[in-house]
Amino acid sequence: MTSEAERDERHRARMARQKAVVDAKIASAAVERGVVVVNTGNGKGKSTAGFGMVARALGHGMRVGVVQFIKGSSTTGEEAFFRRFPEVEYHVMGEGFTWETQDRARDTAAAQAAWAVAGGMLRNPGIALVLLDELNIALKLGYVAVDDVLAALRARPAAQHVVITGRGAPDALIDYADTVTDMHLVKHAFQAGIRAQQGVEL
Amino acid sequence: MTSEAERDERHRARMARQKAVVDAKIASAAVERGVVVVNTGNGKGKSTAGFGMVARALGHGMRVGVVQFIKGSSTTGEEAFFRRFPEVEYHVMGEGFTWETQDRARDTAAAQAAWAVAGGMLRNPGIALVLLDELNIALKLGYVAVDDVLAALRARPAAQHVVITGRGAPDALIDYADTVTDMHLVKHAFQAGIRAQQGVEL
Repeated sequence: MTSEAERDERHRARMARQKAVVDAKIASAAVERGVVVVNTGNGKGKSTAGFGMVARALGHGMRVGVVQFIKGSSTTGEEAFFRRFPEVEYHVMGEGFTWETQDRARDTAAAQAAWAVAGGMLRNPGIALVLLDELNIALKLGYVAVDDVLAALRARPAAQHVVITGRGAPDALIDYADTVTDMHLVKHAFQAGIRAQQGVEL
Repeated sequence: MTSEAERDERHRARMARQKAVVDAKIASAAVERGVVVVNTGNGKGKSTAGFGMVARALGHGMRVGVVQFIKGSSTTGEEAFFRRFPEVEYHVMGEGFTWETQDRARDTAAAQAAWAVAGGMLRNPGIALVLLDELNIALKLGYVAVDDVLAALRARPAAQHVVITGRGAPDALIDYADTVTDMHLVKHAFQAGIRAQQGVEL
């Protein structure tokens, strides 16, 4: 046997073992139900991955609900894009970032209004995926109560998926969620003086 | 002053300070150029965030190139969705996961063919965003050389953005990239026996 052939054979054997492990895991994962996904942490990609799931759901012909908490004042690429689709119900909270308004009472009222829209989606079995973008920020600031969110998640239609994004997800939400990713900042272009770019951040 | 009014005023003052910090950061980030974004780590959301950036770019009317390395054998929701758009050039590598093929020579040839398509996109100034999905896996397995990737990134059109996803991004790529996120698994529904779901993983 040549060394190259040996290397190929070792690769084949290693991959065959890996396939056995993967196949066994897939066979044992038998439960089908709606899942709650939380994207948190200080890095880029929390909302972006939420919108990637919206695209994925649309690829399967699902109906999707989106509520953007906090980020209401800027029109982003996602909003321009996903508003084109009749399968997407898209709601943006009326106010901007909380450091733009500097008004706690107004922010609370706006967040509660957005949460009321989200609550309607979480009771609607016709909506297969609900994206609650930056809800964690509203929870952290106390504009929406985590107990209200948990109650709505528990009572939602069994097949409905929910994605919740934003820094600082509360522990009770992390405990309840099925899939949680901590998106950790290794570095960001912004730190090197690069402006937020269309198609990347905007 | 009532306690509630004091609390509102403290909030306003804190947010005013935060706005000053944010505004100064935005003003100092003056460079405009294409950025390289790397999504790595063992958690969910690496590819999903890449596809979220594709949606964002389409919202701005940009042209996008997608090359899926490794994941070629399954038709996912993203592929079904983004193939609808004439602005998206979508290429899927011909073979499936490497533990499905168990054939290093065939995998290498397929990865090199996919890399050739990616190289064409990285020389095309008409493509504003290039998503190289799971390229990190092909780099890790040695199917594509990291030096070839770095040379192509350095020589690409100045305004072009590139997103590279997959576990185990090589250090040289992390060093070169502008924005890097380590998507860390906190937990995954799969671990609790929940099957991969349409609109979430598929």
